Amino acid sequence: MIVPLLLSGGSGTRLWPLSRADVPKQLQALAHEDTMLQATAMRVIDNVNGLRFDAPCVVAGEAHRFLVGEQLLHIGVQPRTIILEPQGRNTAPAVALAALYLAAAGDAQSLMLVMPSDHLIADVPAFLRAIDAAVPDALAGKLVTFGIEPTEAATGYGYIQPAAAAGVVRPVARFVEKPDQETAHRYLAEGYLWNAGIFLLKAVDYLAALERHAPDVLTAARAAMQAPERDGLFLRPEELAFAGCPSISIDYAVMERADNVCVVPVDMGWSDVGSWDALWRVAVPDANGNVVRGDGALIGCRDSLVRNDGGPFVAALGLEGMVVVATGDAVLIAPRDRAEDIRAVVDAIEARGLDLARTSHEVRRPWGSYKCLGRADGWQAKRLAVRPGGRLSLQKHAHRAETWVVASGVALVSVDGVEQRLSAGQSVHIPTGAVHRLDNPGPEPLDVIEVQLGDYLGEDDIVRLADIYGRTMRAG
Amino acid sequence: MIVPLLLSGGSGTRLWPLSRADVPKQLQALAHEDTMLQATAMRVIDNVNGLRFDAPCVVAGEAHRFLVGEQLLHIGVQPRTIILEPQGRNTAPAVALAALYLAAAGDAQSLMLVMPSDHLIADVPAFLRAIDAAVPDALAGKLVTFGIEPTEAATGYGYIQPAAAAGVVRPVARFVEKPDQETAHRYLAEGYLWNAGIFLLKAVDYLAALERHAPDVLTAARAAMQAPERDGLFLRPEELAFAGCPSISIDYAVMERADNVCVVPVDMGWSDVGSWDALWRVAVPDANGNVVRGDGALIGCRDSLVRNDGGPFVAALGLEGMVVVATGDAVLIAPRDRAEDIRAVVDAIEARGLDLARTSHEVRRPWGSYKCLGRADGWQAKRLAVRPGGRLSLQKHAHRAETWVVASGVALVSVDGVEQRLSAGQSVHIPTGAVHRLDNPGPEPLDVIEVQLGDYLGEDDIVRLADIYGRTMRAG
Repeated sequence: MIVPLLLSGGSGTRLWPLSRADVPKQLQALAHEDTMLQATAMRVIDNVNGLRFDAPCVVAGEAHRFLVGEQLLHIGVQPRTIILEPQGRNTAPAVALAALYLAAAGDAQSLMLVMPSDHLIADVPAFLRAIDAAVPDALAGKLVTFGIEPTEAATGYGYIQPAAAAGVVRPVARFVEKPDQETAHRYLAEGYLWNAGIFLLKAVDYLAALERHAPDVLTAARAAMQAPERDGLFLRPEELAFAGCPSISIDYAVMERADNVCVVPVDMGWSDVGSWDALWRVAVPDANGNVVRGDGALIGCRDSLVRNDGGPFVAALGLEGMVVVATGDAVLIAPRDRAEDIRAVVDAIEARGLDLARTSHEVRRPWGSYKCLGRADGWQAKRLAVRPGGRLSLQKHAHRAETWVVASGVALVSVDGVEQRLSAGQSVHIPTGAVHRLDNPGPEPLDVIEVQLGDYLGEDDIVRLADIYGRTMRAG
Repeated sequence: MIVPLLLSGGSGTRLWPLSRADVPKQLQALAHEDTMLQATAMRVIDNVNGLRFDAPCVVAGEAHRFLVGEQLLHIGVQPRTIILEPQGRNTAPAVALAALYLAAAGDAQSLMLVMPSDHLIADVPAFLRAIDAAVPDALAGKLVTFGIEPTEAATGYGYIQPAAAAGVVRPVARFVEKPDQETAHRYLAEGYLWNAGIFLLKAVDYLAALERHAPDVLTAARAAMQAPERDGLFLRPEELAFAGCPSISIDYAVMERADNVCVVPVDMGWSDVGSWDALWRVAVPDANGNVVRGDGALIGCRDSLVRNDGGPFVAALGLEGMVVVATGDAVLIAPRDRAEDIRAVVDAIEARGLDLARTSHEVRRPWGSYKCLGRADGWQAKRLAVRPGGRLSLQKHAHRAETWVVASGVALVSVDGVEQRLSAGQSVHIPTGAVHRLDNPGPEPLDVIEVQLGDYLGEDDIVRLADIYGRTMRAG
């Protein structure tokens, strides 16, 4: 049995304004109805794809713990554990945490299938065949990587040069960095493969390789996993110990240095969806080459991507090779071939002190979500969407009063110890400083319009006194 | 003294999504802080520009009556009258209504300065000099038009060919339609002028010209002005009589047919701002040729216009020669040189049954404005902004209940005859069918968050029982 390891630690902004630090790419439904994490997990579920896989382990950021857990449970995947990185330290330490977890559980000999959780794979049977082909070598102590057969001279990926040898599984001659265009063409001609960051290896072999090639990573990870905090499915390595770990990729730390690395070439419709342009490329365009999702009208446009996730109606006229992405609080417009430069946009926005680059318009919480509907001097209106059974923390605010109006569903409201049930159209006022809580006790979703009043309306004006999601000590 | 006649009947969509049927271009602040109508009125105010002008007359659409009145009063202009066209019938009938109004007031010999209210004139002194030059001929019974000295071979305007003659005021050889590019170049070389639709003529002379060249227009307008309804500043021609009037421009009906037409060439920085491209052209661009207004960031853009009026943040990367216009409910993206084709966009939106093409996101009312903040199944949240002294109609709804929360200011609320004062944070529920009213009795603006509840939430579910703005019988 293989233990899938889903790496969900990224917080990239290349797909801004949809992907933001609080809900990064892997937790977004980009190409399909499922999120990238869900799609990644679905590929390695046994009932769908034969009897190869154990329950997956996940390594994710603390801030994403509820979303990760919820997304997996939503598709019926019960992870073995979700290891919460106290800080992002790139892939080598993340995989080390999981390998140490398995070793501590007596599963050091387990095969780990290391997978980024933000890639697309169109041909899953091809992926599974490649895994099957890799198993004997991985069991024999090899570090097996999967090399994507290139479809173009891409400059956005590292490449793997397989050694000249027969067989499906071939030794690796070398790993190389992202090339320039000319070099990429040479790599393509010479049979290099794209490095997709997918690996099959035994936990014990990975730890041994770390010991030899990146002992500082192993030392820090070991210290962090000495006595991790267990919190249901979540496992928290010790924060201070992990803080001392270098930030380094598995490629740099191990693969480029080890001599027991081999590669399985695979053609499986892979994409890392690393840009809006890449998303356009993997979609099925209409007769004019356009890809449209969400509210919009394209008139006389060609080869363009329009994506609208809750933004205003997008009317596009005469666009050629453009990307338009609209959300409730930001809209991006760029030529498709500049889509890789979105970092510059995000930097410009952060330089203005705007939170747009980091926080989504609709903010997810374990009880549901909220978003700002409007604001002016002295007030802000929000919509709170509380899932059935959802319960906000028992809280108070030092600087703002609030009025809640139930828009749909039934609310159980407590203000300074007085409980009442409110149905649609009913409201309650919460004076500044009052201890209050909002519950959805019913089977239907609950929508509440919250009107905040005060001179300071920041999210940080909150004291959590009790929380069923354990957030009194932690944010999120 | 000259009577300025401001024609404000247009409802064009060439500047969509900002300009819409409910707040068309002339009522928008496009190039400056003032609206186009305000800027037009300011040009012909005596205290600013010498002693030439009487109080202006305005011809406007019924639906815009409050906005027109409010915008003029806001800049201290007290119009002589605001004639409300029951239907738009183009310029010849509109000017006829005003001429008949003056004739009925004993001012048939008055000079009328006919002006579209949606044009820019950068050099107002040059305009005033041209008017002064035109006065003697107009007093002598000529129909004087003002011909703009062309700055390029534009294909978007009609042209005027002056007769070969000496002097500032020259007879007109002929009026010609919008030319193709080649013809436009020829016109430019041969000294033709742009037809800006600005005229100086005596009311009596215009009526005489109508009698001779478009008697059906005069007959219908006369019938409509037989017994117009007076309503404060507003004057309402008889609707059925006016309905029979042909829809025809003053150029077609009179100018192209009359033999007593002359033209004053003028170079006054004129633009009809007929497209987003035209707006970019009259603005002062930054070093990269960009014009930005409202929330947005431009990275590596050139020669582009970004305009954001209450829409999400606009992040533009690598645009060249593009137009981006964002509002709360729609964003337009188009190449600047396609900006004239916006009609196709508006048609596509109307074909989808969307109201976006006609109604603004923030809907103006005589008491203030409202806008939708969010909606879902069974509810809708709105913000009502009520100006000091503003008073919504006494009303009831057949299909929806409402809850009002005061967000700022003080509200006087009446529900089924029970009055109460509410301050920020306080709320009231209005059951379906209850007779209710909202007042802003205070000196501060009043913001109310309205949560509507019901299966049908259309604007047409309203019965107005009393209204200080006279809207119980009329919409708006």
